[in-house]
Amino acid sequence: MAERPKTPILDRVTVPADMKVLTDAELHQLADDVRAETISAVSETGGHLGAGLGVVELTVALHAVFDAPKDKIIWDVSHQCYPHKILTGRRDRIRTLRMKDGLSGFTKRSESEYDCFGAAHSSTSISAALGFSVARDLGGQGGDAIAVIGDGAMSAGMAYEAMNNAGHLGKRLIVILNDNDMSIAPPVGAMSSYLSRLYAGEPFQELKAAAKGAISLLPEPLREGAKRAKDMVKHMTVGGTLFEELGFSYLGPIDGHDMEQLLSVLRTVKARATGPILIHAITKKGKGYAPAEAARDRGHATGKFDVVTGEQQKAKSNAPSYTSVFAESLLKHAAEDSRICAVTAAMPDGTGLNKFMERYASRCFDVGIAEQHAVTFSAGLAAGGMRPFCALYSTFLQRGYDQVVHDVAIQRLPVRFAIDRAGLVGADGATHAGAFDVAYLANLPGFVVMAAADEAELVHMVATAAQHDDGPIAFRFPRGEGVGVDIPVDATPLEIGKGRMIREGKQVAILSFGTRLQEVEAACESLAAKGITPTIADARFAKPLDRELILKLASEHEALITIEEGAVGGFGSHVAQLLADEGVFDHGLKFRSMVLPDIFIDQANPRDMYAVAGLNAEHIEAKVLEVMGVVTMGKRA
Amino acid sequence: MAERPKTPILDRVTVPADMKVLTDAELHQLADDVRAETISAVSETGGHLGAGLGVVELTVALHAVFDAPKDKIIWDVSHQCYPHKILTGRRDRIRTLRMKDGLSGFTKRSESEYDCFGAAHSSTSISAALGFSVARDLGGQGGDAIAVIGDGAMSAGMAYEAMNNAGHLGKRLIVILNDNDMSIAPPVGAMSSYLSRLYAGEPFQELKAAAKGAISLLPEPLREGAKRAKDMVKHMTVGGTLFEELGFSYLGPIDGHDMEQLLSVLRTVKARATGPILIHAITKKGKGYAPAEAARDRGHATGKFDVVTGEQQKAKSNAPSYTSVFAESLLKHAAEDSRICAVTAAMPDGTGLNKFMERYASRCFDVGIAEQHAVTFSAGLAAGGMRPFCALYSTFLQRGYDQVVHDVAIQRLPVRFAIDRAGLVGADGATHAGAFDVAYLANLPGFVVMAAADEAELVHMVATAAQHDDGPIAFRFPRGEGVGVDIPVDATPLEIGKGRMIREGKQVAILSFGTRLQEVEAACESLAAKGITPTIADARFAKPLDRELILKLASEHEALITIEEGAVGGFGSHVAQLLADEGVFDHGLKFRSMVLPDIFIDQANPRDMYAVAGLNAEHIEAKVLEVMGVVTMGKRA
Repeated sequence: MAERPKTPILDRVTVPADMKVLTDAELHQLADDVRAETISAVSETGGHLGAGLGVVELTVALHAVFDAPKDKIIWDVSHQCYPHKILTGRRDRIRTLRMKDGLSGFTKRSESEYDCFGAAHSSTSISAALGFSVARDLGGQGGDAIAVIGDGAMSAGMAYEAMNNAGHLGKRLIVILNDNDMSIAPPVGAMSSYLSRLYAGEPFQELKAAAKGAISLLPEPLREGAKRAKDMVKHMTVGGTLFEELGFSYLGPIDGHDMEQLLSVLRTVKARATGPILIHAITKKGKGYAPAEAARDRGHATGKFDVVTGEQQKAKSNAPSYTSVFAESLLKHAAEDSRICAVTAAMPDGTGLNKFMERYASRCFDVGIAEQHAVTFSAGLAAGGMRPFCALYSTFLQRGYDQVVHDVAIQRLPVRFAIDRAGLVGADGATHAGAFDVAYLANLPGFVVMAAADEAELVHMVATAAQHDDGPIAFRFPRGEGVGVDIPVDATPLEIGKGRMIREGKQVAILSFGTRLQEVEAACESLAAKGITPTIADARFAKPLDRELILKLASEHEALITIEEGAVGGFGSHVAQLLADEGVFDHGLKFRSMVLPDIFIDQANPRDMYAVAGLNAEHIEAKVLEVMGVVTMGKRA
Repeated sequence: MAERPKTPILDRVTVPADMKVLTDAELHQLADDVRAETISAVSETGGHLGAGLGVVELTVALHAVFDAPKDKIIWDVSHQCYPHKILTGRRDRIRTLRMKDGLSGFTKRSESEYDCFGAAHSSTSISAALGFSVARDLGGQGGDAIAVIGDGAMSAGMAYEAMNNAGHLGKRLIVILNDNDMSIAPPVGAMSSYLSRLYAGEPFQELKAAAKGAISLLPEPLREGAKRAKDMVKHMTVGGTLFEELGFSYLGPIDGHDMEQLLSVLRTVKARATGPILIHAITKKGKGYAPAEAARDRGHATGKFDVVTGEQQKAKSNAPSYTSVFAESLLKHAAEDSRICAVTAAMPDGTGLNKFMERYASRCFDVGIAEQHAVTFSAGLAAGGMRPFCALYSTFLQRGYDQVVHDVAIQRLPVRFAIDRAGLVGADGATHAGAFDVAYLANLPGFVVMAAADEAELVHMVATAAQHDDGPIAFRFPRGEGVGVDIPVDATPLEIGKGRMIREGKQVAILSFGTRLQEVEAACESLAAKGITPTIADARFAKPLDRELILKLASEHEALITIEEGAVGGFGSHVAQLLADEGVFDHGLKFRSMVLPDIFIDQANPRDMYAVAGLNAEHIEAKVLEVMGVVTMGKRA
């Protein structure tokens, strides 16, 4: 472990109030300390490094000028919140980031009063800040509301919706556009080009001197219509018309690493702003740490690393990731079917579509952080004769749910949804859990919903989706690496709505949907030692259900247990509905549906999270023993 | 019934191809014919009149210039599609609009090849059109893609997401901004103000002559960057910078009722456009029909009416609507609790919040068609100490689902969701059905989910929500009028998670969630004549479930039937999960869960739709007899 950095100024700061006595020069030094501490901490924990390094000066300046927790600082997505956590009473736990029982990798209301609004999904901050602003003006306790949002997050519709509303209401509200020209991937879209033009037009370096002067001259009220605001800030603005047309005053671009400029701008805005104002700060993701600055992703997310060399500890891999198996499979089908397109919402790497983008650039679309559009754009592609694969994380597909219903399902269009990060995902915690997709998709008429039990199954499911033209189809698979089974050379489309028997046993049948199958098998190995040999089946489909298989399992066993990596309302609920409709319960069946429990589960490694959820082998074994105990006792409750 | 109008030119047009031989003067006459036919038809059917009247000329011009169905004309929301239907082979059925087995009130792919992309929810058209554009360029069969979108719909984030992507891709794509300064309600937001400024700056009347000249001079390619496009169209543009910054060429504003100008602009755009172009057309909702023009909502939606007088047939009302009962109740609580706010997404009338807006203007927020923002803005209000009621239709809440999960549920914030139009809604058909909300809300940890059995129950549920500070709470209620029970003078907060017994019976228990309770009672009246007296209970809560009540019903009856106005995965599924977990199925329970079937149900009156769904009294009675038949037979399947 590397030596801890010397941080003399930071050592004097536990909470933002401690910063009020510091001179500007000391604040500058504090930023250096916070940067060193951030690098040191993340080298031990892994996590989102680049984003935090990019806002070190901004974080210090915000906490120096504003008064959290009375003032509400809202970090969009909040990958960049580690410096904020260090400065708000959590330095002592910063080396537990993203660990079980440790600090969350995101802002979290239950963790600190300084985290006034939690985040993890993108582009929510302006809406939340506007809510705080309005609440304040209605007599609530808060002070200023400040949203810090990245340029990538500005591609999302809800950021626009919030600005549209904020510009209309005219409340005092501060939005800091943290423009580092890099979200997880390089940002795309016309807005991104626009921001680049704003910056390219007249780099802020030449504006430094003018900035202070211009801002100090700002009259009160700061904003009276777009035209006046534009006149007022013309000394330092090189554009910003788009924001002004939406009712915001635009200040910028400014250098987000220039503490003097930041303090000057923020102090002036605090003293003078009356309406919504957007401060356009140019920052560099990974700033101040050479290995991050040099990395393709600017050190977006990292494992533990050596501070001196930047070298990351790589976890040893036993099998390819589900994501890469999906991506490789899709490439093969795309080679055979030129109608196949791929759509990602700002996650080309996370979804594995970067490979598709290299090979078939004209058929691959990164639409930005814009899941609503991603889904309906896919629907349009399908209506136009293409066969789009819309690759999204389960938790982000929630953003496009109405579009799934209204544009895809009702129109029965052949959009194929590749749902990554299904189930519990580990260090990203509750906000990233893919818990609800089976429930919210499997009740849509005409949908096909699959879950892969392992990476070989995933290959077959990609093939199944690739040939399914009769309406929408979805397949879900988890984060992380596969179980190490051989990848089939020839992908075989599955028969729609047909599961498979894994092992014939007796008394108890376990019907698994998804990758809990490995846990089921482990449980049954343990049970075998006790002389108990349950039947195991893999449902493959939550919709349509394999009616024949399920009724056979029910009729040939005393107990039927379903298990899935999702919340109630999904696979097990559909099985229960079938069994009820068929009258199977009328004369008794020991039916149990093992689902995610009714809690949001905090971050830990996935295995530990599934332990909390009660969905590991030991819990399956216990469930089997429980239902067999009921068999033995033979009494009606 | 009024005499049918004389429509000599329209009589020669069955499909758009028939328009190709018409002169411009005849096209002008055709528009008059279409307007007369639209008014005549809607006078007989009721429906969305104003929007269609506003685009009569635009519809004729589009079909005259472009070649549908090869060219893809996409009507956003599609309230305005009646003239389009009249001109695309459906005039013979136009007087069946919104009726059972008649034409849909919206565009619908399964209805006509001219409806290339169905709609009913707002702001999807640009995404869909971009999909068609890309598909065309990848070798698909389509020609031009044209999205016709209202100014109100531009407040939605997904329209921005689509423009951001379209501006980036640079494909040839035509967006017609149909700016009538009126969606269902007057539009709100900064974008709306911006559009007004564009128009106010230099009204198009003065631009008529210039328009033709300027456009005819447009060089090819039309667009090479925002700056060049701006120069090129400067003769006729008075702004549009915002759209140009997003990568669109901006043309306008033009007079959307001036056939000559429309034809000229569209022909030039068709001949010359290379990239994305936005045509800003000013129209008047209800144009050409005095009673609609004079109406506050510009004849947005109407019942059957007398063409000469404009007088509408009012359906006689036996009870106040659920919407008005909700709205009145909320007003009472708002008077007592100044923290109560109300949030609507462009539906102040539809949600009944217009009254709240009049009384408590500072606490009521119409955020525009922006459900994502509506939910997170509400979350921000709640975090800031307010107690927001977010009033949305069930089907539109789907737009804000991720925000419900990520910003409200995970943070356990006291946002109260008033979910109107739950269940099947009648003439608006499948796209407006509130079918999925129970499934997608009741599996969220910490949520409380209620459904009102009648208007008195709704009053209690509003009170329950008003005092519930421990996390989110939702209550759903249907479209239309209540059942006529007395409205309680004193609203009584319900005990969370407690249902109520309606009638003690025997053998069979029926547990109802929502307004099917009336059907259950009717079924039981009929059954009583056969000597069968089921127990009836009203669950009130889908989450948390009334465990005690449900287990008691299960243990004291041979059969338990649940019924709800929602899809599988909802209330009945949660009951099944409880019964399974408790081992109730182990030794037999005749359990049935009556839910919406696995189909999208076309428009009809709600009663007929519920007949298709199998959820009316007769179906309940049949279900009871079925399970009792099983009792009689007493054999295991």
